[in-house]
Amino acid sequence: MNTVRIGIVGLGNMGKGHAQYLIEGQVKGAVLTAVSDVRPECLAQAKENWGAHLHTYESASEMFRSGEIDGVLLCTPHYEHPKQAIEALQAGLHVLVEKPAGVYTKQVREMNEVAATSGRVFGIMYNQRTNPLYAKLKELISSGELGEVRRTNWIITNWYRSQAYYNSGGWRATWAGEGGGVLINQDPHQLDLWQWTTGLMPKRVRAFCGFGKHRNIEVENDVTAYVEYENGATGVFVTSTYEAPGTNRYEISGDRGKIVIENDRMTFWRLRQLESEFNRVNTESFAQPECWKFEVPIVPGGAQHKEITQDWTNAILHGTPLLAPGEEGIKGLTISNAMQLSTWIDGWVDLPIDEDLYYEKLQEQIARSAVSAG
Amino acid sequence: MNTVRIGIVGLGNMGKGHAQYLIEGQVKGAVLTAVSDVRPECLAQAKENWGAHLHTYESASEMFRSGEIDGVLLCTPHYEHPKQAIEALQAGLHVLVEKPAGVYTKQVREMNEVAATSGRVFGIMYNQRTNPLYAKLKELISSGELGEVRRTNWIITNWYRSQAYYNSGGWRATWAGEGGGVLINQDPHQLDLWQWTTGLMPKRVRAFCGFGKHRNIEVENDVTAYVEYENGATGVFVTSTYEAPGTNRYEISGDRGKIVIENDRMTFWRLRQLESEFNRVNTESFAQPECWKFEVPIVPGGAQHKEITQDWTNAILHGTPLLAPGEEGIKGLTISNAMQLSTWIDGWVDLPIDEDLYYEKLQEQIARSAVSAG
Repeated sequence: MNTVRIGIVGLGNMGKGHAQYLIEGQVKGAVLTAVSDVRPECLAQAKENWGAHLHTYESASEMFRSGEIDGVLLCTPHYEHPKQAIEALQAGLHVLVEKPAGVYTKQVREMNEVAATSGRVFGIMYNQRTNPLYAKLKELISSGELGEVRRTNWIITNWYRSQAYYNSGGWRATWAGEGGGVLINQDPHQLDLWQWTTGLMPKRVRAFCGFGKHRNIEVENDVTAYVEYENGATGVFVTSTYEAPGTNRYEISGDRGKIVIENDRMTFWRLRQLESEFNRVNTESFAQPECWKFEVPIVPGGAQHKEITQDWTNAILHGTPLLAPGEEGIKGLTISNAMQLSTWIDGWVDLPIDEDLYYEKLQEQIARSAVSAG
Repeated sequence: MNTVRIGIVGLGNMGKGHAQYLIEGQVKGAVLTAVSDVRPECLAQAKENWGAHLHTYESASEMFRSGEIDGVLLCTPHYEHPKQAIEALQAGLHVLVEKPAGVYTKQVREMNEVAATSGRVFGIMYNQRTNPLYAKLKELISSGELGEVRRTNWIITNWYRSQAYYNSGGWRATWAGEGGGVLINQDPHQLDLWQWTTGLMPKRVRAFCGFGKHRNIEVENDVTAYVEYENGATGVFVTSTYEAPGTNRYEISGDRGKIVIENDRMTFWRLRQLESEFNRVNTESFAQPECWKFEVPIVPGGAQHKEITQDWTNAILHGTPLLAPGEEGIKGLTISNAMQLSTWIDGWVDLPIDEDLYYEKLQEQIARSAVSAG
């Protein structure tokens, strides 16, 4: 294969964005040959914008079986992701799914199982993994520069959304339509990066979600979560949608000092020797380890969505490893589900979570939802 | 009365510090006339340093009844504060107690009750209330500049203490000797300022203490706490003693924007209109309220300990109101006790706390303590 023929399902904001850079030839080795949407007017618009040669389908299933595509980008509502991915993989297609991987881990686990035996390339649109800041952080931690991680703290409250935003779609911020709020819609990137950069998944989670805080919505838009890791480290994750201007500050403390990412800069307070080593030999009551503060140079770049699509295309054509394997989508989602579940049961949630219990509790929310499931 | 004759109980680091500025005449209207310490060598040293005219007592009780002093500064170990304050008040003395007010609220409440009917001036050494940064923050919040408080977040992890520090005194970081760790020894100022600046006491607390983390000690030196306030706001407090270089960052988010105190500076992201008002009238999906960021000018000053002693002296001589009334010591201590209790019972603690339960749990810790109660 020299060229991957790509189809897109769902021509909302994300789908149109992906189509645009593909049409412009910005992804080497990939060509957009087909699109699918349940709305005929979107398909007509697609032909008008991108050329009459484009194959269009009101049914995604029909596109999957058309023989016109080798791989598919799934840009549909969250609940659709796993079942469409499974269907596409089973039709022999490579799949790149938009975030989140799904709404509940039970369906995402099933998707991962199908992907594992499919022999196809399965990726997820974690475009923030291409952000040089987070890539650098991951490299600093995995190479041991920061020493063992002792604490993480992410304040990500700059997802400001007004009531007008929530009113702009009846499915928005509903249990039936989205399956959650800030955790499932705005935070999937941070929840992925939190565990990806540190290489640590929480062992257990205690979280406190506020539902419809300062907004007339039914889902969570205010979360404080405390987590514990296997190595004894702890973490805090705070997020909301009603704070203006909000904060995006990610601090990681380790045996070798502290790194803070804020305002698109990374600052490293680096100890000359490990704190644990200093502490072992120091004899003075109020002494502290010597610390050098500096800005970590960040190589500009990171092509975001199109870099992920390029990476996935390369994997299909050349067998290169994925930056964002689809199977890893379950990690951030597990943390997200655990935070909601901890609130619902008002207690600790151990990981891996009780998927059946989460599913049951989610159904209870949906049953009470103002918007019935479609 | 033209001059307040002051006695000091306890000539440790704090006691000696207070004596020094009093001897230097830095507090108008106050004179150091007596000191008390159970160690005769400290008393001999005091006479040598500060003059043979100084009355010295091995027994604090004797000093209280000596007729040589009008007021007393209590600089003894934490557990001693309430009982000594009660004795001094009952002897007709004005009292200024070092922080913390005590170890458990039950004894502090008793002290407050005695103070309330004593007719004497009862203060607490909350010298950080004289820090212009926090005084300014309190003024900005109480005057309505920030709008209603919606979230607080204090990361105070720059209390670095090595094992050498903990080894420097057998009573240090023990349940019997100190009654706690970072919360009772290092954080009393922050726990006071947290509620004093916002004017908000938590309604309930869920906290997670780590005991002897990266250190060979029995008390907590790592705390993450989540709190909820009556008005629906939430808060996070993170503290530790093993992180180098640690962080001291206090963020308060309100209806009118956000204030952050960090690196001895105060930054205010101020909205032109209240967020709640913007949200009510805005019709655009992704619009945000207009925000102006600026540094809040801070008038230098804040004489710390001696300002509190001056303030207390003024109250005695002129009846002026106290910046730090002793009765308010129970507030920060209540939060501190609630954080430990929440960890011990692994659940929510409602405020006011169950003082008997806290006392019982504390006794369990003491019974297991490596250092027996003296």
